[in-house]
Amino acid sequence: MNVEIVTIGDELLLGFTVDINASFLGRELASLGVTEVRHTTCGDDIAVIVETLREALERTGAVITTGGLGPTADDMTVEAVAKLFGRTMARDEGIARWLEQRWLTFRRKAPMPESNYKQAMIPSGAEIIANPIGSAPGVLLTDERGRWVVTLPGVPREVRSMFTESFRPRIAALAGNGAVIRSATLRTTGVGESAIADKLGELGKGFNGLSLAFLPGVSGVDLRLTSRVLVSQQADAALAEGTRILREQLGDAVYGENEVSLAEVVLAGCRKAGMRISVAESCTGGMLGSHITDVPGASDVFHGGLIAYDDRVKRQLLGVLDSDLDEHGAVSEPVALQMAKGIRVRLGTEIAVSITGIAGPDGGTDEKPVGTVWVAVDVSEGRPPIPRPHGHPPITPYAKARLFHFAGNRDEIRYRAAQAALDMIRRTVLEPPKPPAT
Amino acid sequence: MNVEIVTIGDELLLGFTVDINASFLGRELASLGVTEVRHTTCGDDIAVIVETLREALERTGAVITTGGLGPTADDMTVEAVAKLFGRTMARDEGIARWLEQRWLTFRRKAPMPESNYKQAMIPSGAEIIANPIGSAPGVLLTDERGRWVVTLPGVPREVRSMFTESFRPRIAALAGNGAVIRSATLRTTGVGESAIADKLGELGKGFNGLSLAFLPGVSGVDLRLTSRVLVSQQADAALAEGTRILREQLGDAVYGENEVSLAEVVLAGCRKAGMRISVAESCTGGMLGSHITDVPGASDVFHGGLIAYDDRVKRQLLGVLDSDLDEHGAVSEPVALQMAKGIRVRLGTEIAVSITGIAGPDGGTDEKPVGTVWVAVDVSEGRPPIPRPHGHPPITPYAKARLFHFAGNRDEIRYRAAQAALDMIRRTVLEPPKPPAT
Repeated sequence: MNVEIVTIGDELLLGFTVDINASFLGRELASLGVTEVRHTTCGDDIAVIVETLREALERTGAVITTGGLGPTADDMTVEAVAKLFGRTMARDEGIARWLEQRWLTFRRKAPMPESNYKQAMIPSGAEIIANPIGSAPGVLLTDERGRWVVTLPGVPREVRSMFTESFRPRIAALAGNGAVIRSATLRTTGVGESAIADKLGELGKGFNGLSLAFLPGVSGVDLRLTSRVLVSQQADAALAEGTRILREQLGDAVYGENEVSLAEVVLAGCRKAGMRISVAESCTGGMLGSHITDVPGASDVFHGGLIAYDDRVKRQLLGVLDSDLDEHGAVSEPVALQMAKGIRVRLGTEIAVSITGIAGPDGGTDEKPVGTVWVAVDVSEGRPPIPRPHGHPPITPYAKARLFHFAGNRDEIRYRAAQAALDMIRRTVLEPPKPPAT
Repeated sequence: MNVEIVTIGDELLLGFTVDINASFLGRELASLGVTEVRHTTCGDDIAVIVETLREALERTGAVITTGGLGPTADDMTVEAVAKLFGRTMARDEGIARWLEQRWLTFRRKAPMPESNYKQAMIPSGAEIIANPIGSAPGVLLTDERGRWVVTLPGVPREVRSMFTESFRPRIAALAGNGAVIRSATLRTTGVGESAIADKLGELGKGFNGLSLAFLPGVSGVDLRLTSRVLVSQQADAALAEGTRILREQLGDAVYGENEVSLAEVVLAGCRKAGMRISVAESCTGGMLGSHITDVPGASDVFHGGLIAYDDRVKRQLLGVLDSDLDEHGAVSEPVALQMAKGIRVRLGTEIAVSITGIAGPDGGTDEKPVGTVWVAVDVSEGRPPIPRPHGHPPITPYAKARLFHFAGNRDEIRYRAAQAALDMIRRTVLEPPKPPAT
């Protein structure tokens, strides 16, 4: 089954708004086995909208629109669809009452403006598609040849909710039992794209009828397996097997699948191991803590940390030695190690990680160019070894620092540093412990 | 002048990639007075590309494409354009040499693969558009009726660089001296959309031929004035006058214009006032520090901070009283005040700000629902008043806390809290000082 997407709005053509509805619908349709053959964006002009929809309908016979369902004068999608299908518009009293009710609930004080009743104007013969979270309902119009147009709103949150709850079951039924396009993503970090390609060899070109895409980004390299020729159940099985094969090849470079974040993986691992985390951040300035606390419920594992941006803070609150700051500089192995140990001891956690580096654009030298970052991890000393689940041996207290040279702009370097720090915790907690640092 | 954009790539239709090239080009064209009348996305199929380009060219006579310029089999934009214009393709030896040179520079080890020479295949009569940072050059083909297609790459960074450096001068010349679409944005924070609308009254509907859009987001409400009917110089003057009028109405709610961030404004203000900042963060977990240190060169003003996620950290390192934690809870005025004072004294800065709140999704109560956040600011006590520039009176030491109820999900609440903390610094440093808190 083929469909076209038409997204409507001057703000899209003017570039004030990035069209994330189009990519959302693209992914959703692909996962249902529906082929989006074209996507068109047009402005808020009823003649142009009618013409664009007519062309799309003639090509494909199935069109999903977004935008132009609001109460203001520049919202005219439903009117355009009615015109295209030769239908008259009439007020739907059920929707009018619902709009009034909604108005009362959200903005109690003033009466609903007359203009809002526009959203209750429905073309004759239209089916109404419920909008679970917004005021604008969608309509589905079908002609005598079975060609159809459905209208979704422009607000991305409403599009997601309306597509998922009200429209997906219907379109899945229309799409039949053909091949689906379905993907599985393996997330890796700490290993470059070319090193992964080397490890995978021929597998890197795709295998078992699955295509394989390398998606490098600041959080690491994601590997996306995609099935395009199988029916639903077979596709799932092929992806599960493909995922298993890649995991076998890549080992501990893989930290998770699909949407999981490294911080979630780290928190879950520390929770299992009964280890609490503290952090000491210089160049990342709080970004590592922020990424960790992005995860709801982080508080049982994440204790806190210090943003030691100024060297005086490193000295005063983390006990970093003046002599090391003077001799080696703030971006150095001894300073990173002392920062990690300093925060761990201060906050009394089982594990701590530190970051000190040069994020740029200024501050780089020949010896330590922009992108130079030291990350250190420190695990309790002077305490009994830390017991761990699943028959792994207990974690031996140790400290370790690693030097990184990150590419990118200030943002990317900081993000990569935060990710590398999380990965050092992950490898410490989730994998067999390494011997104490020499 | 009217143009159409055609963005090419299966990854766009499948939703794996968000089409930010389209919004970039939309903004750029609008600022040049060029009207983008339609934007179409099609997949990597040469027949479909040719057909899509033909339709666009017939409608508008001027088409900009992105994507499909790479060396692999699914890159066929240039071939499609050649087909459409009935031109033959031949290898351009200048480009071939340049590609070899580029290959040597970036990947010294292996010889350039034969497939890369594909990027040197140029349609007869084409003008080459230089790509300053990528390997794929663009081409501009014009037919005997003056209709043209220009091809840009798919990588956003390359599109920006190529459009700006190689293509903008040319298209600006083509566009002539007609009306331009140009905008100015005023950034506000700490005041809701409806309060701003109330303050603006009739001005809120636009004025002096400028339209006015309200753009609420987690960082505050942006107000965008847009001129669509004036020529370049008049548009600039109208926007400057419109900006002045809005600033007059909105006073200190406005923190800046266009792309400036609140953190930049705060850092610049503190720098002028000779005040250094420290922060104490609970629910934001480092996000405030991260936003401050997003700004290059923050280190002369930003000293550091403490991520006091666990209450023990608030007690041990910030001196928050057990009795207040017990009696009022961690999310309370006395705790916020003690956190701000604690970090300021510890790190020896002139000003400090603290955040303690409930970001959710769990942890809310009837009395303190999710979204409840206390923010406190503390300015040096026991020191002489802080001298300030521009004839403002010196800052009197004081402390103050504010209670917020933020809407949104965990992310949004945290972002709004960080923004509110920055705004409390801004109001303290940039505006006439308030009397000491009672």
